Amino acid sequence: MNFYIKQNILLEHLNYVIKGVSSKNLIPILNCIKFELTEDGLYLYSTDSEISIKTFIDKKDINNIDSLGTIVVSGKYIYDIIKKLPNSEIRIEEVNNNKIIISTSSTEFSLNCNEVSDFPNLELDTVENPIILDKKVLKDIINQISFATSNQESRPNLTGINFIISNDILECTGTDSYRLSKKILSIPTNNNESNIIIPTRCLLELIKIINDNEGKIEMHIFSNKVLFKFDDIIFMTRLINSTFPDTSKLISNEFINEIEVSYKELYNAIDRASLFSVNDDKNTILCEVNEKNIKISSNIPEIGKVEEVIFADNKTGDDFRISFSSKFMVDALKALSCEKVVLKFNGELKPFLIKNPSDDSITELIVPIRTY
Amino acid sequence: MNFYIKQNILLEHLNYVIKGVSSKNLIPILNCIKFELTEDGLYLYSTDSEISIKTFIDKKDINNIDSLGTIVVSGKYIYDIIKKLPNSEIRIEEVNNNKIIISTSSTEFSLNCNEVSDFPNLELDTVENPIILDKKVLKDIINQISFATSNQESRPNLTGINFIISNDILECTGTDSYRLSKKILSIPTNNNESNIIIPTRCLLELIKIINDNEGKIEMHIFSNKVLFKFDDIIFMTRLINSTFPDTSKLISNEFINEIEVSYKELYNAIDRASLFSVNDDKNTILCEVNEKNIKISSNIPEIGKVEEVIFADNKTGDDFRISFSSKFMVDALKALSCEKVVLKFNGELKPFLIKNPSDDSITELIVPIRTY
Repeated sequence: MNFYIKQNILLEHLNYVIKGVSSKNLIPILNCIKFELTEDGLYLYSTDSEISIKTFIDKKDINNIDSLGTIVVSGKYIYDIIKKLPNSEIRIEEVNNNKIIISTSSTEFSLNCNEVSDFPNLELDTVENPIILDKKVLKDIINQISFATSNQESRPNLTGINFIISNDILECTGTDSYRLSKKILSIPTNNNESNIIIPTRCLLELIKIINDNEGKIEMHIFSNKVLFKFDDIIFMTRLINSTFPDTSKLISNEFINEIEVSYKELYNAIDRASLFSVNDDKNTILCEVNEKNIKISSNIPEIGKVEEVIFADNKTGDDFRISFSSKFMVDALKALSCEKVVLKFNGELKPFLIKNPSDDSITELIVPIRTY
Repeated sequence: MNFYIKQNILLEHLNYVIKGVSSKNLIPILNCIKFELTEDGLYLYSTDSEISIKTFIDKKDINNIDSLGTIVVSGKYIYDIIKKLPNSEIRIEEVNNNKIIISTSSTEFSLNCNEVSDFPNLELDTVENPIILDKKVLKDIINQISFATSNQESRPNLTGINFIISNDILECTGTDSYRLSKKILSIPTNNNESNIIIPTRCLLELIKIINDNEGKIEMHIFSNKVLFKFDDIIFMTRLINSTFPDTSKLISNEFINEIEVSYKELYNAIDRASLFSVNDDKNTILCEVNEKNIKISSNIPEIGKVEEVIFADNKTGDDFRISFSSKFMVDALKALSCEKVVLKFNGELKPFLIKNPSDDSITELIVPIRTY
């Protein structure tokens, strides 16, 4: 292998594959990036056993290919080296003794390589009829749902986002069993029927490498893995091999109270009340709903207390009180981000919904806290 | 105490005094801020036993003073509360049972107070002929010297910056015994003769509250403390009660080699070489000086190596090699920040200097590492 390439082009693609290199991995070969220089161009590969990434630099973006070949080098070192080089032409050359030389006119790095045959075969095959989504749609799904998933490894099925595809409907759900975020949307008709759980951690890595909002992304679903294909990148993640709980019965269609409030007023009131909700690990705040307003309060007896009153249009007029986590409410509101929100209650011990009145596709649910 | 004030004005001044509140302090009263509302305006005080801060809001910046008084409240809570309130008028009112109410039209915080008599007397008196510096000059001194001081509490005299004032000369030095940064400058004539050590930690807190570069700052020096006075702020810190080593003999006036190099080329070369200097805790890199250039190299045998060549004007022409810490060199270069630097050597085992050829006031010194 011996070629010349502009630093910024190689760095852009290393930025993609480095996401598949785990610095904590105990298996040394999984800390590596594989460079495969063919007549078409340069393929880069990485895998940390959960995520695998492949990216491609076309030969037209490579200045001079003197000889083809494949090498495997430390991901951390090759990434740091290329990042610290100036934005000019650099040469990468394989030399004897399983080494590469990375050089510019004034700098010469020598880096030991690993055995190419030790690098795992990634099996990045695709299906015939992938699901096609706008990049922006997939990014929104991940941003609006991932926060509600669990990070407790003791309940692995809740540590991912559930994707249910039924012909032209996509239903995505995340829950940690105390709150839930769900999005339902129409997708182009296809013949897929799938019900999978994708690890949240992997999806959060995926959106880091989807740079723009324009364009499409293909989802290739297998029984144990899913491939996302876009631009010159393939991003594969394993699936969580478990059953996602049926959450459809949790979300009621009828409510005793439906209250519309200003998003900004509610957000700021909860944010301030959270200052005094830190004395238990649940961040409990109290919400008292009257005919014309909502009073939000919290207190730490030895420090002080806070009371917030915000105007609310309580359509059914009954007074009641409910306690919930200020953190869960702030997270849910961040996922909605709109002008007004509607709170839908069914009594002080039943889960309640937070909805954007002008976008029915997304539903936020919070389970209240029993305080007596 | 009962007054109205704009949120942004109170927040600005809380931003100053909060720097004197240590969240880790075990003495609860030192986690507090004292509010003293007089006919002249509002004084705020804080202290963590090393640093004491006083700031003043003139009565013209207070909307309505209904009654005077003094209270002491949790610094963390009052700061977080005011920060989270909207930028509008807020009311602060002392009520029975040693509490204050902080309120706007829709929000009401109640905060328990501490005993005013428990708050320490800060003794913020001043001297008749303080030293007067430009704010910018003092900020430069701290930014260019603090990094070279030690953070090892076992050598307390090296954990601060040494200020020697001798009539119209100010000499500031920081060293951790492996490197040194020194600045010498002229100041307006005064009758001070002082030799003090100010804790680096306290000086770094001080520059956080010097917002602008315009204007003067007064230094009032006592035997055990120093007061910095500027705008409406007094910042007091204890001195380190110890003797600073005499560093004047360390800095030679004659050198065997004086080499001028491009600042940017040297900085980038050292930065890249540092990638392979992490295998010992000294970050050792090797520098080989020839007639026309400098070769900088480092290696980790099991990973790889790097060699950088930069053009250098080696005025005396002798070839030699010297090893030093890449981190110390990067720190020294950051403190200089100029177009060209001159490196002054006296052999491979003697401390060497890094100088800005167009600013003789500042000197960087590094002790080399013996590698054999």
